[in-house]
Amino acid sequence: MPVPQSGQRGPVDHERRDQIMAAAIEHFGHYGYKKTTMADLADAIGLSKAYIYKFFDSKKAIGEAICALQHERMRADIQLIVDDGKSASDRMRRIFLALARNTVALFSHERKLHDIVYAAVEEEWKSAGLFAEALRAMVEQVVREGRDAGEFERKTPLDETCQAIMLILKSIYHPLLLELHMDTLDEDAAKLANLVLRSLAL
Amino acid sequence: MPVPQSGQRGPVDHERRDQIMAAAIEHFGHYGYKKTTMADLADAIGLSKAYIYKFFDSKKAIGEAICALQHERMRADIQLIVDDGKSASDRMRRIFLALARNTVALFSHERKLHDIVYAAVEEEWKSAGLFAEALRAMVEQVVREGRDAGEFERKTPLDETCQAIMLILKSIYHPLLLELHMDTLDEDAAKLANLVLRSLAL
Repeated sequence: MPVPQSGQRGPVDHERRDQIMAAAIEHFGHYGYKKTTMADLADAIGLSKAYIYKFFDSKKAIGEAICALQHERMRADIQLIVDDGKSASDRMRRIFLALARNTVALFSHERKLHDIVYAAVEEEWKSAGLFAEALRAMVEQVVREGRDAGEFERKTPLDETCQAIMLILKSIYHPLLLELHMDTLDEDAAKLANLVLRSLAL
Repeated sequence: MPVPQSGQRGPVDHERRDQIMAAAIEHFGHYGYKKTTMADLADAIGLSKAYIYKFFDSKKAIGEAICALQHERMRADIQLIVDDGKSASDRMRRIFLALARNTVALFSHERKLHDIVYAAVEEEWKSAGLFAEALRAMVEQVVREGRDAGEFERKTPLDETCQAIMLILKSIYHPLLLELHMDTLDEDAAKLANLVLRSLAL
Protein backbone atom coordinates (compact mmCIF):
# COMPACT_ATOMS: atom_id res chain seq x y z
CA MET A 1 0.00 0.00 0.00
CA PRO A 2 1.65 3.28 -1.06
CA VAL A 3 2.37 5.59 1.85
CA PRO A 4 1.97 9.24 0.91
CA GLN A 5 4.99 11.49 1.34
CA SER A 6 4.24 14.13 3.89
CA GLY A 7 3.66 17.49 2.27
CA GLN A 8 2.44 15.87 -0.93
CA ARG A 9 -1.27 15.36 -1.37
CA GLY A 10 -1.97 14.00 -4.79
CA PRO A 11 -5.11 12.36 -6.19
CA VAL A 12 -4.11 9.05 -4.60
CA ASP A 13 -4.14 10.72 -1.17
CA HIS A 14 -7.61 12.05 -1.77
CA GLU A 15 -8.78 8.64 -2.80
CA ARG A 16 -7.23 7.04 0.26
CA ARG A 17 -8.80 9.69 2.49
CA ASP A 18 -12.21 8.97 0.95
CA GLN A 19 -11.68 5.25 1.47
CA ILE A 20 -10.90 5.78 5.15
CA MET A 21 -13.99 7.96 5.53
CA ALA A 22 -16.23 5.46 3.75
CA ALA A 23 -14.95 2.66 5.97
CA ALA A 24 -15.35 4.85 9.05
CA ILE A 25 -18.95 5.68 8.14
CA GLU A 26 -19.69 1.98 7.87
CA HIS A 27 -17.90 1.14 11.11
CA PHE A 28 -19.35 4.03 13.14
CA GLY A 29 -22.78 3.28 11.70
CA HIS A 30 -22.52 -0.28 12.95
CA TYR A 31 -20.70 0.02 16.27
CA GLY A 32 -21.28 3.66 17.16
CA TYR A 33 -18.91 6.60 17.08
CA LYS A 34 -18.43 6.93 20.83
CA LYS A 35 -17.46 3.30 21.44
CA THR A 36 -15.06 3.06 18.51
CA THR A 37 -11.34 3.76 19.02
CA MET A 38 -8.81 4.60 16.34
CA ALA A 39 -7.34 1.11 16.88
CA ASP A 40 -10.75 -0.53 16.25
CA LEU A 41 -11.10 1.52 13.13
CA ALA A 42 -7.62 0.64 11.86
CA ASP A 43 -8.34 -3.07 12.45
CA ALA A 44 -11.69 -2.87 10.72
CA ILE A 45 -10.29 -1.06 7.70
CA GLY A 46 -7.18 -3.23 7.58
CA LEU A 47 -4.76 -0.34 7.81
CA SER A 48 -2.28 0.57 10.49
CA LYS A 49 -3.19 3.22 13.04
CA ALA A 50 -0.07 5.16 12.03
CA TYR A 51 -1.24 5.16 8.42
CA ILE A 52 -4.68 6.52 9.33
CA TYR A 53 -3.02 9.24 11.43
CA LYS A 54 -1.34 10.48 8.26
CA PHE A 55 -4.79 11.54 7.07
CA PHE A 56 -6.67 12.32 10.27
CA ASP A 57 -5.26 13.66 13.54
CA SER A 58 -7.91 12.01 15.69
CA LYS A 59 -11.15 10.09 15.69
CA LYS A 60 -12.89 13.42 16.16
CA ALA A 61 -11.25 14.68 12.94
CA ILE A 62 -12.77 11.72 11.08
CA GLY A 63 -16.14 12.37 12.73
CA GLU A 64 -16.00 16.02 11.76
CA ALA A 65 -15.07 15.16 8.19
CA ILE A 66 -18.05 12.77 7.96
CA CYS A 67 -20.33 15.40 9.42
CA ALA A 68 -19.05 18.05 7.03
CA LEU A 69 -19.59 15.66 4.12
CA GLN A 70 -23.22 15.03 5.14
CA HIS A 71 -23.84 18.74 5.56
CA GLU A 72 -22.24 19.48 2.21
CA ARG A 73 -24.49 16.89 0.56
CA MET A 74 -27.57 18.40 2.15
CA ARG A 75 -26.47 21.88 1.17
CA ALA A 76 -25.85 20.83 -2.44
CA ASP A 77 -29.20 19.03 -2.55
CA ILE A 78 -31.02 22.17 -1.44
CA GLN A 79 -28.93 24.42 -3.69
CA LEU A 80 -30.21 22.40 -6.67
CA ILE A 81 -33.78 23.10 -5.58
CA VAL A 82 -33.11 26.80 -5.04
CA ASP A 83 -31.52 27.16 -8.48
CA ASP A 84 -34.02 25.21 -10.55
CA GLY A 85 -36.13 28.13 -11.70
CA LYS A 86 -39.50 26.83 -10.50
CA SER A 87 -41.87 29.11 -8.57
CA ALA A 88 -40.72 30.30 -5.15
CA SER A 89 -43.64 28.47 -3.49
CA ASP A 90 -42.68 25.22 -5.13
CA ARG A 91 -39.03 25.63 -4.15
CA MET A 92 -39.88 26.55 -0.54
CA ARG A 93 -42.04 23.45 -0.19
CA ARG A 94 -39.29 21.25 -1.61
CA ILE A 95 -36.71 22.70 0.79
CA PHE A 96 -38.88 21.47 3.67
CA LEU A 97 -39.32 18.03 2.13
CA ALA A 98 -35.64 17.66 1.23
CA LEU A 99 -34.55 18.49 4.77
CA ALA A 100 -36.94 15.93 6.19
CA ARG A 101 -35.83 13.28 3.70
CA ASN A 102 -32.14 13.92 4.33
CA THR A 103 -32.59 13.89 8.07
CA VAL A 104 -34.52 10.63 8.08
CA ALA A 105 -31.92 9.04 5.79
CA LEU A 106 -29.14 9.99 8.18
CA PHE A 107 -30.84 8.11 10.99
CA SER A 108 -32.30 5.23 9.05
CA HIS A 109 -31.20 1.67 9.66
CA GLU A 110 -28.50 1.65 6.99
CA ARG A 111 -26.80 4.77 8.24
CA LYS A 112 -27.06 4.93 11.98
CA LEU A 113 -24.91 7.96 12.51
CA HIS A 114 -26.76 9.09 15.65
CA ASP A 115 -23.63 9.08 17.75
CA ILE A 116 -21.71 11.33 15.42
CA VAL A 117 -24.61 13.70 15.14
CA TYR A 118 -24.98 13.92 18.92
CA ALA A 119 -21.26 14.53 19.34
CA ALA A 120 -21.49 17.23 16.67
CA VAL A 121 -24.34 18.93 18.54
CA GLU A 122 -22.77 18.62 22.00
CA GLU A 123 -19.35 19.78 20.90
CA GLU A 124 -20.70 22.38 18.47
CA TRP A 125 -18.79 21.12 15.46
CA LYS A 126 -18.22 23.76 12.87
CA SER A 127 -20.05 22.26 9.89
CA ALA A 128 -23.46 22.43 11.62
CA GLY A 129 -23.11 26.20 12.01
CA LEU A 130 -21.89 26.61 8.44
CA PHE A 131 -24.80 24.55 7.17
CA ALA A 132 -27.31 26.68 9.11
CA GLU A 133 -25.78 29.82 7.61
CA ALA A 134 -25.91 28.41 4.08
CA LEU A 135 -29.50 27.27 4.58
CA ARG A 136 -30.48 30.69 5.88
CA ALA A 137 -28.98 32.33 2.75
CA MET A 138 -30.84 29.93 0.47
CA VAL A 139 -34.15 30.50 2.30
CA GLU A 140 -33.63 34.24 2.00
CA GLN A 141 -32.97 33.94 -1.73
CA VAL A 142 -36.23 32.05 -2.29
CA VAL A 143 -38.27 34.46 -0.13
CA ARG A 144 -36.72 37.46 -1.88
CA GLU A 145 -37.38 36.01 -5.34
CA GLY A 146 -40.95 35.13 -4.32
CA ARG A 147 -41.49 38.72 -3.20
CA ASP A 148 -39.95 40.14 -6.37
CA ALA A 149 -42.11 37.88 -8.52
CA GLY A 150 -45.27 39.00 -6.68
CA GLU A 151 -45.85 35.50 -5.24
CA PHE A 152 -45.22 36.41 -1.57
CA GLU A 153 -46.36 39.27 0.67
CA ARG A 154 -43.83 42.07 1.28
CA LYS A 155 -45.18 43.75 4.41
CA THR A 156 -43.29 41.68 6.95
CA PRO A 157 -39.60 42.58 7.30
CA LEU A 158 -37.59 40.09 5.23
CA ASP A 159 -35.33 39.37 8.17
CA GLU A 160 -38.19 38.44 10.49
CA THR A 161 -39.79 36.18 7.89
CA CYS A 162 -36.52 34.35 7.25
CA GLN A 163 -35.72 33.95 10.94
CA ALA A 164 -39.13 32.44 11.65
CA ILE A 165 -38.82 30.05 8.70
CA MET A 166 -35.37 29.00 9.92
CA LEU A 167 -36.77 28.25 13.39
CA ILE A 168 -39.38 25.99 11.80
CA LEU A 169 -36.83 24.32 9.53
CA LYS A 170 -34.62 23.62 12.56
CA SER A 171 -37.48 21.76 14.18
CA ILE A 172 -37.43 19.48 11.13
CA TYR A 173 -33.73 18.85 10.71
CA HIS A 174 -32.43 19.20 14.25
CA PRO A 175 -31.20 15.77 15.34
CA LEU A 176 -32.17 16.26 18.99
CA LEU A 177 -35.83 16.40 18.05
CA LEU A 178 -35.71 13.73 15.40
CA GLU A 179 -36.37 10.70 17.55
CA LEU A 180 -39.59 12.31 18.70
CA HIS A 181 -41.10 12.38 15.25
CA MET A 182 -39.01 10.13 13.04
CA ASP A 183 -42.04 8.19 11.80
CA THR A 184 -44.06 11.25 10.82
CA LEU A 185 -41.28 13.59 9.70
CA ASP A 186 -42.27 13.59 6.01
CA GLU A 187 -45.89 14.41 6.79
CA ASP A 188 -44.90 16.92 9.46
CA ALA A 189 -42.60 18.68 7.00
CA ALA A 190 -45.39 18.84 4.41
CA LYS A 191 -47.83 20.33 6.95
CA LEU A 192 -45.29 22.86 8.13
CA ALA A 193 -44.48 23.81 4.53
CA ASN A 194 -48.19 24.38 3.87
CA LEU A 195 -48.49 26.58 6.95
CA VAL A 196 -45.40 28.57 5.99
CA LEU A 197 -46.69 29.02 2.43
CA ARG A 198 -50.01 30.30 3.74
CA SER A 199 -48.06 32.75 5.90
CA LEU A 200 -46.14 33.96 2.83
CA ALA A 201 -49.23 34.39 0.66
CA LEU A 202 -50.28 37.83 -0.57
CA MET B 1 -44.93 15.16 63.59
CA PRO B 2 -48.27 13.42 62.96
CA VAL B 3 -47.96 10.25 60.93
CA PRO B 4 -50.93 9.72 58.62
CA GLN B 5 -52.88 6.48 59.03
CA SER B 6 -52.69 4.51 55.87
CA GLY B 7 -55.94 4.63 53.95
CA GLN B 8 -56.78 8.03 55.42
CA ARG B 9 -55.78 11.11 53.46
CA GLY B 10 -57.03 14.23 55.17
CA PRO B 11 -56.14 17.88 54.56
CA VAL B 12 -53.05 17.51 56.76
CA ASP B 13 -51.77 14.77 54.46
CA HIS B 14 -52.23 17.00 51.46
CA GLU B 15 -50.35 19.76 53.19
CA ARG B 16 -47.53 17.40 54.14
CA ARG B 17 -47.37 16.06 50.59
CA ASP B 18 -47.10 19.62 49.26
CA GLN B 19 -44.35 20.39 51.78
CA ILE B 20 -42.36 17.36 50.62
CA MET B 21 -42.80 18.37 47.00
CA ALA B 22 -41.78 21.97 47.68
CA ALA B 23 -38.66 20.81 49.50
CA ALA B 24 -37.92 18.30 46.73
CA ILE B 25 -38.22 21.00 44.06
CA GLU B 26 -35.72 23.10 45.97
CA HIS B 27 -33.35 20.18 46.53
CA PHE B 28 -33.56 18.79 42.98
CA GLY B 29 -33.20 22.31 41.62
CA HIS B 30 -29.97 22.72 43.56
CA TYR B 31 -28.33 19.31 43.39
CA GLY B 32 -30.05 17.74 40.40
CA TYR B 33 -32.70 15.04 40.23
CA LYS B 34 -30.47 12.24 39.00
CA LYS B 35 -27.81 12.59 41.68
CA THR B 36 -30.26 12.89 44.57
CA THR B 37 -31.30 9.76 46.49
CA MET B 38 -34.37 9.40 48.73
CA ALA B 39 -31.98 9.40 51.70
CA ASP B 40 -30.44 12.74 50.61
CA LEU B 41 -33.90 14.14 50.22
CA ALA B 42 -35.05 12.92 53.64
CA ASP B 43 -31.94 14.46 55.25
CA ALA B 44 -32.44 17.74 53.45
CA ILE B 45 -36.10 17.97 54.39
CA GLY B 46 -35.49 16.78 57.94
CA LEU B 47 -37.91 13.86 57.70
CA SER B 48 -37.27 10.13 57.88
CA LYS B 49 -37.10 8.15 54.67
CA ALA B 50 -39.89 5.92 55.95
CA TYR B 51 -42.09 8.96 56.47
CA ILE B 52 -41.53 10.20 52.92
CA TYR B 53 -42.33 6.74 51.58
CA LYS B 54 -45.78 7.09 53.11
CA PHE B 55 -46.47 9.77 50.53
CA PHE B 56 -44.32 8.75 47.56
CA ASP B 57 -43.32 5.24 46.51
CA SER B 58 -40.05 6.35 44.95
CA LYS B 59 -37.94 9.30 43.90
CA LYS B 60 -39.47 8.89 40.48
CA ALA B 61 -42.95 9.31 41.97
CA ILE B 62 -41.84 12.65 43.48
CA GLY B 63 -40.31 13.67 40.15
CA GLU B 64 -43.50 12.76 38.30
CA ALA B 65 -45.61 14.69 40.80
CA ILE B 66 -43.40 17.78 40.34
CA CYS B 67 -43.62 17.41 36.58
CA ALA B 68 -47.40 17.03 36.70
CA LEU B 69 -47.64 20.13 38.88
CA GLN B 70 -45.60 22.20 36.41
CA HIS B 71 -47.68 20.94 33.50
CA GLU B 72 -50.90 21.66 35.37
CA ARG B 73 -49.72 25.22 36.05
CA MET B 74 -48.85 25.73 32.38
CA ARG B 75 -52.18 24.29 31.33
CA ALA B 76 -54.10 26.52 33.74
CA ASP B 77 -52.11 29.55 32.60
CA ILE B 78 -53.03 28.89 28.97
CA GLN B 79 -56.63 28.03 29.81
CA LEU B 80 -56.98 31.54 31.28
CA ILE B 81 -55.78 33.01 27.98
CA VAL B 82 -58.10 30.81 25.93
CA ASP B 83 -61.13 31.75 28.04
CA ASP B 84 -60.59 35.50 28.30
CA GLY B 85 -62.84 36.54 25.43
CA LYS B 86 -60.26 38.56 23.48
CA SER B 87 -59.87 38.09 19.71
CA ALA B 88 -58.62 34.71 18.52
CA SER B 89 -55.48 36.34 17.04
CA ASP B 90 -54.64 37.95 20.35
CA ARG B 91 -55.18 34.71 22.25
CA MET B 92 -53.12 32.68 19.76
CA ARG B 93 -50.22 35.09 20.12
CA ARG B 94 -50.39 34.96 23.88
CA ILE B 95 -50.39 31.16 23.89
CA PHE B 96 -47.01 31.29 22.13
CA LEU B 97 -45.63 33.87 24.53
CA ALA B 98 -46.94 32.09 27.63
CA LEU B 99 -45.35 28.80 26.57
CA ALA B 100 -42.02 30.52 26.02
CA ARG B 101 -42.22 32.33 29.36
CA ASN B 102 -43.16 29.19 31.27
CA THR B 103 -40.44 27.17 29.60
CA VAL B 104 -37.73 29.71 30.31
CA ALA B 105 -38.89 29.99 33.94
CA LEU B 106 -38.58 26.24 34.39
CA PHE B 107 -34.95 26.36 33.34
CA SER B 108 -33.94 29.68 34.87
CA HIS B 109 -31.36 29.88 37.63
CA GLU B 110 -33.88 29.73 40.48
CA ARG B 111 -35.54 26.59 39.23
CA LYS B 112 -33.04 24.37 37.56
CA LEU B 113 -35.28 21.42 36.94
CA HIS B 114 -33.40 20.29 33.81
CA ASP B 115 -32.73 16.87 35.22
CA ILE B 116 -36.35 16.15 35.98
CA VAL B 117 -37.44 17.37 32.60
CA TYR B 118 -34.89 15.18 30.81
CA ALA B 119 -35.96 12.16 32.84
CA ALA B 120 -39.57 12.95 31.99
CA VAL B 121 -38.74 13.07 28.28
CA GLU B 122 -36.54 9.96 28.27
CA GLU B 123 -38.95 7.89 30.32
CA GLU B 124 -42.06 9.32 28.65
CA TRP B 125 -43.75 10.40 31.86
CA LYS B 126 -47.49 10.63 31.57
CA SER B 127 -48.03 14.31 32.35
CA ALA B 128 -46.12 15.47 29.26
CA GLY B 129 -48.50 13.55 26.99
CA LEU B 130 -51.55 14.80 28.87
CA PHE B 131 -50.27 18.37 28.62
CA ALA B 132 -49.75 18.04 24.87
CA GLU B 133 -53.32 16.73 24.49
CA ALA B 134 -54.75 19.57 26.58
CA LEU B 135 -52.72 22.14 24.63
CA ARG B 136 -53.90 20.68 21.35
CA ALA B 137 -57.55 20.98 22.48
CA MET B 138 -57.01 24.62 23.52
CA VAL B 139 -55.31 25.48 20.23
CA GLU B 140 -58.18 23.89 18.34
CA GLN B 141 -60.71 25.90 20.34
CA VAL B 142 -58.98 29.18 19.47
CA VAL B 143 -58.61 28.29 15.77
CA ARG B 144 -62.25 27.19 15.60
CA GLU B 145 -63.47 30.37 17.31
CA GLY B 146 -61.28 32.50 15.03
CA ARG B 147 -62.80 30.77 12.00
CA ASP B 148 -66.34 31.19 13.32
CA ALA B 149 -65.71 34.87 14.03
CA GLY B 150 -64.40 35.44 10.49
CA GLU B 151 -60.90 36.23 11.76
CA PHE B 152 -59.15 33.16 10.30
CA GLU B 153 -59.27 31.44 6.91
CA ARG B 154 -61.38 28.27 6.66
CA LYS B 155 -60.03 26.59 3.53
CA THR B 156 -57.34 24.50 5.23
CA PRO B 157 -58.66 21.43 7.08
CA LEU B 158 -58.92 22.31 10.78
CA ASP B 159 -56.97 19.22 11.71
CA GLU B 160 -54.02 20.05 9.48
CA THR B 161 -53.86 23.63 10.75
CA CYS B 162 -53.90 22.51 14.37
CA GLN B 163 -51.28 19.80 13.84
CA ALA B 164 -48.90 22.24 12.18
CA ILE B 165 -49.38 24.81 14.96
CA MET B 166 -48.72 22.10 17.56
CA LEU B 167 -45.46 21.17 15.80
CA ILE B 168 -44.36 24.79 15.99
CA LEU B 169 -45.43 25.13 19.62
CA LYS B 170 -43.45 22.01 20.48
CA SER B 171 -40.33 23.64 19.09
CA ILE B 172 -40.91 26.39 21.67
CA TYR B 173 -41.70 24.38 24.77
CA HIS B 174 -39.84 21.16 24.15
CA PRO B 175 -37.05 20.94 26.73
CA LEU B 176 -34.64 19.13 24.42
CA LEU B 177 -34.46 22.15 22.16
CA LEU B 178 -34.49 24.74 24.88
CA GLU B 179 -30.79 24.99 25.54
CA LEU B 180 -30.28 25.86 21.89
CA HIS B 181 -32.33 29.02 22.05
CA MET B 182 -32.84 29.85 25.72
CA ASP B 183 -31.60 33.42 25.30
CA THR B 184 -33.85 34.23 22.37
CA LEU B 185 -36.90 32.16 23.24
CA ASP B 186 -39.20 35.14 23.89
CA GLU B 187 -38.30 36.79 20.59
CA ASP B 188 -38.42 33.48 18.74
CA ALA B 189 -41.89 32.79 20.11
CA ALA B 190 -43.07 36.25 19.02
CA LYS B 191 -41.71 35.74 15.48
CA LEU B 192 -43.25 32.30 15.22
CA ALA B 193 -46.59 33.65 16.49
CA ASN B 194 -46.48 36.36 13.81
CA LEU B 195 -45.77 33.80 11.11
CA VAL B 196 -48.58 31.54 12.33
CA LEU B 197 -51.01 34.48 12.47
CA ARG B 198 -50.12 35.41 8.90
CA SER B 199 -50.79 31.78 7.91
CA LEU B 200 -54.21 31.96 9.59
CA ALA B 201 -55.19 35.25 7.98
CA LEU B 202 -58.12 35.43 5.54
